Formats: sequence, C-alpha cells, structure tokens
Amino acid sequence: MKIRVINPNTTSSMTEKIGDAARRIAAPGTEIVASNPSSGPVSIESHFDEAISAVGVLEEIRAGEQERTDAYILACFGDPGLLAARELTRAPVIGIAEAAFHMATLIATRFSIVTTLARTGIIAEHLLQTYGFAHHCRRVRAAEIPVLDLEDSGTRALDRIIDECLRAKAEDNIGAIVLGCGGMADLTGEIRDAVGLPVVEGVTAAVKLAESLVSLGLGTSKHGDLDFPRPKTFRGRFDYLSGD
Amino acid sequence: MKIRVINPNTTSSMTEKIGDAARRIAAPGTEIVASNPSSGPVSIESHFDEAISAVGVLEEIRAGEQERTDAYILACFGDPGLLAARELTRAPVIGIAEAAFHMATLIATRFSIVTTLARTGIIAEHLLQTYGFAHHCRRVRAAEIPVLDLEDSGTRALDRIIDECLRAKAEDNIGAIVLGCGGMADLTGEIRDAVGLPVVEGVTAAVKLAESLVSLGLGTSKHGDLDFPRPKTFRGRFDYLSGD
Amino acid sequence: MKIRVINPNTTSSMTEKIGDAARRIAAPGTEIVASNPSSGPVSIESHFDEAISAVGVLEEIRAGEQERTDAYILACFGDPGLLAARELTRAPVIGIAEAAFHMATLIATRFSIVTTLARTGIIAEHLLQTYGFAHHCRRVRAAEIPVLDLEDSGTRALDRIIDECLRAKAEDNIGAIVLGCGGMADLTGEIRDAVGLPVVEGVTAAVKLAESLVSLGLGTSKHGDLDFPRPKTFRGRFDYLSGD
Amino acid sequence: MKIRVINPNTTSSMTEKIGDAARRIAAPGTEIVASNPSSGPVSIESHFDEAISAVGVLEEIRAGEQERTDAYILACFGDPGLLAARELTRAPVIGIAEAAFHMATLIATRFSIVTTLARTGIIAEHLLQTYGFAHHCRRVRAAEIPVLDLEDSGTRALDRIIDECLRAKAEDNIGAIVLGCGGMADLTGEIRDAVGLPVVEGVTAAVKLAESLVSLGLGTSKHGDLDFPRPKTFRGRFDYLSGD
Amino acid sequence: MKIRVINPNTTSSMTEKIGDAARRIAAPGTEIVASNPSSGPVSIESHFDEAISAVGVLEEIRAGEQERTDAYILACFGDPGLLAARELTRAPVIGIAEAAFHMATLIATRFSIVTTLARTGIIAEHLLQTYGFAHHCRRVRAAEIPVLDLEDSGTRALDRIIDECLRAKAEDNIGAIVLGCGGMADLTGEIRDAVGLPVVEGVTAAVKLAESLVSLGLGTSKHGDLDFPRPKTFRGRFDYLSGD
Amino acid sequence: MKIRVINPNTTSSMTEKIGDAARRIAAPGTEIVASNPSSGPVSIESHFDEAISAVGVLEEIRAGEQERTDAYILACFGDPGLLAARELTRAPVIGIAEAAFHMATLIATRFSIVTTLARTGIIAEHLLQTYGFAHHCRRVRAAEIPVLDLEDSGTRALDRIIDECLRAKAEDNIGAIVLGCGGMADLTGEIRDAVGLPVVEGVTAAVKLAESLVSLGLGTSKHGDLDFPRPKTFRGRFDYLSGD
Repeated sequence: MKIRVINPNTTSSMTEKIGDAARRIAAPGTEIVASNPSSGPVSIESHFDEAISAVGVLEEIRAGEQERTDAYILACFGDPGLLAARELTRAPVIGIAEAAFHMATLIATRFSIVTTLARTGIIAEHLLQTYGFAHHCRRVRAAEIPVLDLEDSGTRALDRIIDECLRAKAEDNIGAIVLGCGGMADLTGEIRDAVGLPVVEGVTAAVKLAESLVSLGLGTSKHGDLDFPRPKTFRGRFDYLSGD
Repeated sequence: MKIRVINPNTTSSMTEKIGDAARRIAAPGTEIVASNPSSGPVSIESHFDEAISAVGVLEEIRAGEQERTDAYILACFGDPGLLAARELTRAPVIGIAEAAFHMATLIATRFSIVTTLARTGIIAEHLLQTYGFAHHCRRVRAAEIPVLDLEDSGTRALDRIIDECLRAKAEDNIGAIVLGCGGMADLTGEIRDAVGLPVVEGVTAAVKLAESLVSLGLGTSKHGDLDFPRPKTFRGRFDYLSGD
Repeated sequence: MKIRVINPNTTSSMTEKIGDAARRIAAPGTEIVASNPSSGPVSIESHFDEAISAVGVLEEIRAGEQERTDAYILACFGDPGLLAARELTRAPVIGIAEAAFHMATLIATRFSIVTTLARTGIIAEHLLQTYGFAHHCRRVRAAEIPVLDLEDSGTRALDRIIDECLRAKAEDNIGAIVLGCGGMADLTGEIRDAVGLPVVEGVTAAVKLAESLVSLGLGTSKHGDLDFPRPKTFRGRFDYLSGD
Repeated sequence: MKIRVINPNTTSSMTEKIGDAARRIAAPGTEIVASNPSSGPVSIESHFDEAISAVGVLEEIRAGEQERTDAYILACFGDPGLLAARELTRAPVIGIAEAAFHMATLIATRFSIVTTLARTGIIAEHLLQTYGFAHHCRRVRAAEIPVLDLEDSGTRALDRIIDECLRAKAEDNIGAIVLGCGGMADLTGEIRDAVGLPVVEGVTAAVKLAESLVSLGLGTSKHGDLDFPRPKTFRGRFDYLSGD
Repeated sequence: MKIRVINPNTTSSMTEKIGDAARRIAAPGTEIVASNPSSGPVSIESHFDEAISAVGVLEEIRAGEQERTDAYILACFGDPGLLAARELTRAPVIGIAEAAFHMATLIATRFSIVTTLARTGIIAEHLLQTYGFAHHCRRVRAAEIPVLDLEDSGTRALDRIIDECLRAKAEDNIGAIVLGCGGMADLTGEIRDAVGLPVVEGVTAAVKLAESLVSLGLGTSKHGDLDFPRPKTFRGRFDYLSGD
Repeated sequence: MKIRVINPNTTSSMTEKIGDAARRIAAPGTEIVASNPSSGPVSIESHFDEAISAVGVLEEIRAGEQERTDAYILACFGDPGLLAARELTRAPVIGIAEAAFHMATLIATRFSIVTTLARTGIIAEHLLQTYGFAHHCRRVRAAEIPVLDLEDSGTRALDRIIDECLRAKAEDNIGAIVLGCGGMADLTGEIRDAVGLPVVEGVTAAVKLAESLVSLGLGTSKHGDLDFPRPKTFRGRFDYLSGD
C-alpha cells in the first residue's frame, strides 16, 4: 500500500519530519511517500497561505495519481484543499485535522486543541463546525509560536506547547489534547509524557485512517458531489489542467 | 494485538458471522476474539433490548480485562453501553455505529443509513446528534426486516436491503450508504456491488479503527469523565461488581 | 392515582428520602410508591453505574405494571434507562433530570446545574443536548461531593452545594438553579433560602409532571419507536424477560 | 389556587370554550378565571395580530396582579407576549405552545404540529427553535382553516384537522400530535379518537403545568432578565403604565 | 427615496439624534423621516417595554404607508415588532440589531456586542439565535448604563461603553464590536477611535441596507408568511385597525 | 468609490455580463472595475475549480490594492477564497453567496436556492452552515445546467431555471428565491417576472453591500484573524508572493 503524505507547505525539513513520523507509525506493508509542492509558502499561518498551498496540494494529488497511490494525507491542520483533492481521485484523502478530531472523540468525550498561532484558531473553529465536532471541542488554544519555530530546536516551542497543554488540562474539563499543527508530529511523545493526557496528533492518526480505508476497500465516493471535476478549459498558467 | 469483538446479543451464529467479518479485515498480527454475553436478548431491536444487553457488554469487557485485551468493539449499531464500557478499561472501545459514521464522512460529504426496523431509527438519530454527525446523514431508512431474519438465508432480507439502498441512492443526494446493523456484516460486498455506491459497514470499520488506536498508543482517557468508576458496593445479583 | 417513584440505586435510605419528598409534594389523591431495585449499585456516579442500574429500573417498571401503576418516575439525575422504561408501559415515565429542565425553562430564561461530582457532568451535557435544552443551561457545576455523602448529615455536603449555587448566581447570568442529584431532594428548601434564587429539584418536579400527564390522559405513545418491545427470547439469567 | 387563563384574542365565545376546557382539567382546588382583553383582534393569525394582542395580554396580567393570581396561562399557540408577561409578576406564566411541546416530549420522541393556517407555521418554527424543541418536531402542518371557523360548528374544521393529523401519522414518523391553536381545546378528544395517537393540547397542558409550578413553590425568577421592568414614563395612551 | 426611521421609544431627543445619524450616512437622494410613536415608553429596557413599543412601531408603519415610504428602519436594538411590521408593507423593514449583525459578519469572523443593561442581553441572545448569528457572536456585554443616560452628556456613559469595548477587545478574540443600542448612534466615531476596532452601529447600517434593498427592487415578500394580515375585526381601542 | 468586481473564472463574456449587472445597480459615484484572472478555469463547477480559481481571485485582490480599490466583490456563488482575500486588504470583500443570503433574510423568513448543477449544492450547504443561514434556507435546488450554458442564449437555460424556481415556489414554503450562480446576473428580471417571487441575485446584492460598508467607513478588521498574512517566503512559481 502506498500512501502519499503531502506536506502542503514547501519546507522540506518539515516534510521529512512528517514523513518520518508517518513511517514510524505505518504498518509493515505500507510505503510512505512524503512530498511537498515545489511552489507555495514555507509555512501556513493564514487563510491566504492556505489558499495558495491548496494549488500545490492538488498538484501533489495529480502527481500521486500518476503512480498508483492508494491514499493521500494532507499534513496541515487546516486540511487545505481537502474536498478539491477528493474530487481528483478514487483513493481516500484525509486531512490531519479531521483525522485527529475523529480519533480524539473515540477516546475522550471532550478535547481541546493546542495550535500554533491564535490567528489560525478560526480555521479550526470552522472545521469543527463543518465536520460536526464543535460540541466535542472545549477550547481552541494557541501557544503563539510561528510554525517554523517548530523546525528550530533552539526555540522554546516545545515548552510553550507543553505549558498550554497543561493549562488546557487544568482548566478545560477535557480528556484529551489535539495537537493543532503538522509540525508537532515529532513532539507528540514528549508532550504526552509531560502532560499526562492522551495527545492526538494528526499525521499519525491520518496514516492509520488511510490504511484503514484502503483495507476496507473504501475510497472517495464518485457518486455525487465528490465525483471527478467536469473536464474543462483552464487558461493561462493553469492551462495544463485543461481536460478534454 | 488482541481485539475483543463483542456481539451484544446472545445469538452465537451472529457472533460467528461478525467474528468472521472481523477476521477477514483484521491485520496479520491481530487476533480477533468474538464473543457474546451468555445472558441477554437474542437480538436488539428496542431501547429495552439495548439496556439489557448493556449488562452483557460490560461483563464481556470485564472478561476481556482478565486476559489483556488491546481493544474492544461493540458490534451492535446502537453502540449499547459504549461510555460505560470505556470507563472499565484503558483500552479503546469502539461502537460500530460511530465507526461507520466516522469512516463514511471521510469518503462522502453526505450519507444515508439503511437499518433493519424503523423503530430503531430513533436510536441512530440520537447517536448522530450526540456524535456530531446529524448534518452528514441525509436520512435514516429501514428495510423493515427483523434482525434475526438476517440469520436466515431463506428470507428476502438481502433483497429488501438492496432495494432500500437503491432508493437512498436515487432520492437522498448522498455519496455513501451506512449499513445499520451488525448482522449485515457479511452482506457488504453484495450490497456494494448491487448498489454501486461505497457501503460502509461498522464491524469492519471498527476493527480498523481499533487497530489504529492501538498502533497510535491511544486508549480511553482516564483523565476526567471516562476514568474508572469509583469502587462501591453493588447489591443483589450484581454484588460481584462491588469494589473495595 | 398511583405513582411509582423508582430510585435507581439500592440505597434504601435515599429511597425513603426521595419517597418522602415525593409524598410531600403529591396531590391529595396521589399514592406514592417509592421503591428501589434489590440489585444494583448503592449510588450512581458513572456511566457504568448507570448502565447497571438501568436493569433494576426496568424491573421496577415491570413490577409496577403488575399492580396497575399510573405513572413512573426515575429518580436519578441521569435518567437511566428512560426510553427503555417507556417502551414497557402505556403509563408516562419521567426522569428527574428532564423534569427539572422543563420546569426551569418555564420560570427563567437561563439556568445552571449544580451536581455532585464533576465526572457526571458529561451525562448532564448529553441529556441537555438530546432533550434540546443545551442553550438554556449556562453551566454544569459540581460541588464535588460523592452521592452518599448526601445521606450523611455529618458531612459538609449542604454547605458545599450552597457555595457552588452562590457562585453560579454570581457568575453565570442565570435566573434559576437546577439541582443535579435525586439525593438533594430534601435540601431544596434550605438551598433556596440560602441562595435567593428559584431552585428546581427533579423529584418533586417529576411528581407534578406525572400527575399532570395522568390527568391529561396522556401516556407514553405506543405508536412508533416507544411501542412495546417485540417479544423475543432472552438467554441466561435474563431468560425471565423472554416473551412469546 | 387561582389561575388566570388569558385568551389573547377578543372573541369571548372562544374564551368561554377555553375556560371550559381549563376547568374540566383543573384540580379540585383550582379556580379558573378565563378572560380576554377588551381590546384587540378577534383572532390571531399573523405576527401583526400577535403584536397587538400582546398589549391586551399584558393588561390582563396587570389585572390579575390586582387580585392575587397564582399563575397565568396565555392561550394562543404563538405564546404572544410571554417573556414580557413574565416580567410583570412573580407568578408563573405559561404559554400553550410551550406547554404542549414540553408535554409532547415526555410521551413521544418526535411529534408533528397541526395548526390552522400555513402562514402561522413560521411562528411555531421560531418558538421550537427558541425553546429548544426543533429536533423533536418533525413537521409543522396546517389544516388551512381560519381560527374563527373553529367557533362555527357548521364548518368542516374538525374533519380537516383530523385529515391532516392522519396524514401526519402516516407520513411523519411520529409518536404524537400537538394541536396548534387554543381554539381546538374542545376538539382534543374527538381528534384523539379519530387519529389513534396521543394528541397534546396546549390549554389543558398549561393548566397542569401551572398547577404544578404553584405546588412546587416555583414562580418566575426575579433574579436577572425576567425581573420587574424598571419603572419609567410611558407617554400618550400608554401613560397609565408609567411607574414611579 | 424616502426612508422612515422609527425610534420605537417616545423620547424625541433620541429620535432626533437617530435621525441625524441616519441623515449623515444617507445617500444624496435619500430623504430620512425620523419619527417616534406618540404613545409608549420613553426607553426600552425590558421585554415589557418592547411589547408595548411594538404597537407604536406598527402605527408608525401605518403612518408611513399613507405617504409612500420606500423603506422602514426600526431603531431599537431588540428589533421590536419586526416581523409584524413587515406584514404591513411591501417595503423593506430593517431592524438595527439585524443590520448590525449582518454588517459585522462581513468584516470580521467573530464579534461581541456591547449593550446598555445586562438584563436586555437575553433579547440579543434570542435574536442572534433566530437570525443565525449565534456562532459569530463571542459575547454579549453590558456597560450597565440605563438607555436615557445616553441622552445626558453629563453622565459617564461614553467612558463606560469604551471601557467595556476595550475589555471585549482584550478578552473576546474578536474582530469587531457591535453597539447594542440605537441611542449610541452618535458615539460610534468616538468609540471606534478609542477602541481601535471596527465598530458597527445599527442605525447607520440599517440606512445603507434599506437603500440597498430599494435600489435592488427588493421588498418584503408578500408570498407566504409575511403577506398582509388577513383583514379582521379589532375590538376596543384597537378598533381602528379593523379591516374589511 | 471604486469597486472591483472579480469574476473568479476566466470567461471574459461572463465578466462583462457581471460587470454590466454591477454597473446597472451601482450608485452614481461608484466606479465598477470588472475583472477576471488571466489564469484559471473557464467556469467553476467543483471544489477543484474553486480551489484553483482562488489563486486568481487573490491576484486580482493584489492588483486592486495597487490602484486604491474601495471594495471587492467575488462574483462566484461559492465565495472562493473569501477569507483569504479579506486578509489581503483593509477594504471590504464580499462574496455573492453571502450577499444574497443576507439580503434574502431581510425580506423573507425562508428562501430556497436555485443553482446550476446539483454537485455544487454541497458548496452552498457548507456556506449556509458557516455563515449561519442553514435554518433560513429550505432547500438547495439545481436546474442542472452547466455554468457556461448561461452564456449561450440558444440553450434552454432560462426556462429550466424558471421551472425550478416555480417548483420551489410551489413546494418549499418560501418567500424568496436566491439565484445560485453569478452567471444568472442578467436573468434576474425575467426570472422574477416569471416566478412572481422576490428573486435575490448575488452580484447586485454585493454591489450594494460593498457601497454600504464603504459609506459606513467599515472595512475588513485587521484586528485578529483577518489581519494581513505574516510576511514569509513563497517558493517556486509563487515566489512573487514572498514578503519581507
């Protein structure tokens, strides 16, 4: 089984880290292809970054379709381009935010999210509402660390995340923490140990969900609104997307 | 990894069928222990049946805890006793209704449920609301077949289910069907082929979710409201449940 | 009119207290039969306790049906086994949580709940959502007293409940308090006096609702999903529940 | 105990009918004072009628306060002026729509409303949402009969209501019917017999709820947003409402 | 284009202030007629005040209909009598609460309301729910100033409003403030400057929405539930409302 | 005042049509700049088309920022890239779907949407939920016409839209229709005349809302989550987006 883990930003060190986390959790027969678009933002910290990154995500899906991919993971907590990505393939496509939410609700009645920057909290709020998990999340919290600080071991990023998780544990009446950034994939264990709560991380959760769907023979429904896009003309620098 | 698949009713032929379905989908290293309580209803078709069956479910969890079980599955579509079961163990416990809902939302924006009897539709409605999936389910449909007719290959159960699924496909503006009874676990393939839609079945979905959580090192949170029950005295024929 | 007030736990002193509270509020022609199951937990402080207690509740309903009972009350704030109980009878069955919620919304736009242990708050949250009162409840608060401490006049239980009620009054922007445990039935007056807010207690509320429904000639609907359970075989120690 | 049943419209024959229905259901010690404003519309079939009728409702509350009234009932299905009425008194005030909704949810998981004119359906929809019962009501149906036709025994009003109730029973997957007009108070028995479902009528339901609250010592909360209005100057023909 | 801005209370100084605010924002061709009922409360600070004021609002609509009015604005934050007013005319009718909510959601993902008295917060909560904006409003705050203090430049009203807005900015995770009283219409600029957030004021917002609808040729729908009220008899001092 | 009306697709004939509709409704002092990206799909009929078109939308915003633009309109019914666009400017940015929803709720209690293809209905459903209008929309209907057929006067597009609107009028219990495609901007009058209901069209609605916000001095909040994106490096063909 080949799973393409797409890091929607263009920071290859983060792609590697995410790929490593995916590989560590993957089943023996699972091949993880970690990739990131060649074009796009180095981190995703706004709706704007997210919108631009969606193009790269979709190109990575198209690339994946060229080489028989069994499932895709979008490894940014805003799940950028998720429904569009699903239209391009029969394979399952899983966002790491939804993956983490699903898993968290299976082990706790209520959870809080600890993300990077407060300004992206609204993205999580919208996803919670659309996915149906608004009632399960007590609070969206931010450690106020830029995404790329997670790449820099010299920063106090880990400490700040743990501090915020501990505040969530003390104040939010929750059973679990959801980590709100793909760049935290390598910190899960340390956070879990320090916080003493189940900590759900989306990249690893998504790998297992992807493997699960493939095993079940379930792929993106092509009946209805996730069917392949109607072929049409694209103009200008998107002309390569034109269908017949 | 050992997963205990608990059929909450006491019909052993259904337990075997469910166990077989679970084994067929399980990963190589997964051992499936299919069991059912020795006491309780032969099928679950009402809130009453469900309430009684919960006792058996909980005893099966307790039995599982005696032999180091890694995860539990409750193989009745009403997820009877789910939160109570979670309190008894650090292992993950997954209901087949929630499992099917989670998986369905990953491959389609909207689904319909096809269950056995109309009277149990309200159980599904309540679960959809509590779990957060009310907006994702277009309609709860019933094929109007008693559960145990699913055990009797002479009945027209399969035809009626397929008919109802086809009506859902034609009328409900959906991308997937969720099968609303653990007793349909062996019919998934035939239904899928006849209907031409992704068909999500809960037993198989739950096995993969259980394996996933175990791999992720995630178990039921013991922080907060799913912690082990406070030990106390139980009277009468439940005195064996008394703690110290 | 005969109302059976079922204390779902097996602590007879609590049953007496609840029965007394019911009798004090009952109309002249109303006979209160206070009972508790002979088997089950001495207090209900978890989903597990609740699930086990439901069996006793259902047996008490069955016992009541043998002697022409006009209405039933389930005197535990989690309303354990409520829908199952309704299936067993044409008489109305009322949970004390729902009773308190209904009454509270008739006298205040918003209320808070003060319950015993924080871990049972999730039960109240789920009921509020299912019943439709989630928007009317500002906050679920816990005095952090075990249920049976309410039986022990030596404990500081009353003080702690009053303290929590006063905090609710000061902070929650509410018009009324709902007491979140049947064991508080005898404390209502003292709490009300100390807090200076309307205090809604479920046992007494339920008695009046039960009398009301009986007077109105309204009983549990037997059309649709609350109809009597389909008769079937029960195995093992539940074989006495088998129908024909 | 004295309950003032206020018919918000000015049709005294309807007031009598409503008063009779209230008296038939009232407990022995309950005195029913049925009244209607001297000023206002003869029937309430629009938001406009409702807004004008609210003035009369409030004057009837004020009149009731002059003579020590224990509870009030607003006998129009839109519950016109309900929260304003509550501000004027420490006594409970109950609308017949809310009364019917509360009672219906105690005996059935889902109900439908059968009201007079389709144009007033939106009023019921808004009440259902504000009160929290939107999920419990499957459908708001109209028999398309003007309110005052209910006063005219020569019309086919009863037949049309029964027809619509039967359609609800056949199509809506419900356990009970809520009658959507105070003017149907005398038809409940006939409708129930013809339809074969529990039929919840608001005037009678409200009488029992009012008696219940009074027995419980519960009145409108004067803490917070239902406190007495701040005294102030009213100008023009409302100058008699000025406080000091 | 003629827009009638109806101040639902009877304080003419506030009417003038509101009229001035409306005129300052109105387009060149827009004539603003600011009026208030001759009868009713001098300020609206409760459900009771609101219910009485609705009569005056409706009379002002009727007056406006005599002189070819293109649109109406109800300049009290509770939008009293809004749906009733719409029934009386083909012209658009806009409440200042809804106007402010609509505009706020176009410039910020989340807002808070700063109103006068805490007791009227429930009115805003109900409007937010009915209109659909409950999720967009983080918090309803009160500066605890009586409405008419806004007319008295000697009071500290402005300071208190600004203080509360600053608290909202600091604590609520919002992008904009909605002012919760028509009497604040002249303070918007000062508040905006002091707070450093977009501040949405309803009177001015409503003027632009009214002009917009008129330009678009859109008026209140007369198909369905906002159609003109059925003509009927009104009794007593409302007999002048009787239709034929 | 200069408003940039951005047609998110690359079909210039549609851009012209949309620009003409905008100019016809614009106030005298308003300059309409109608533009479309040079790169992107010729029509938007899927999540994929929408995701790609968002890049062009954002570039058009950036172009607009070079020439002092007062407000922006996104003239595709899915409001593609709306929140991202808002991050790029202090000017208001309005999507035509939201514009139409806001206006429709001001003139009717309930509306239905008539869009082009059923597969895009899910986009409308998600917007309704996120914006808060889910309860106001009875039904999302599709005329099943590809977007570009709207450009071809030879097709029966208009007839099919009118037919679907008439079905909505007959079946949906609504007061208004919302047209679900920017390409219908020139058909509004004909549809309105044929259907006999208020018909709300988003491009024209958005122009008036944009003018309104500018007049009010209200622009996109730069406090909180719609602030300008943090400057950062973009790689590959998006390197021109890199900030300092």
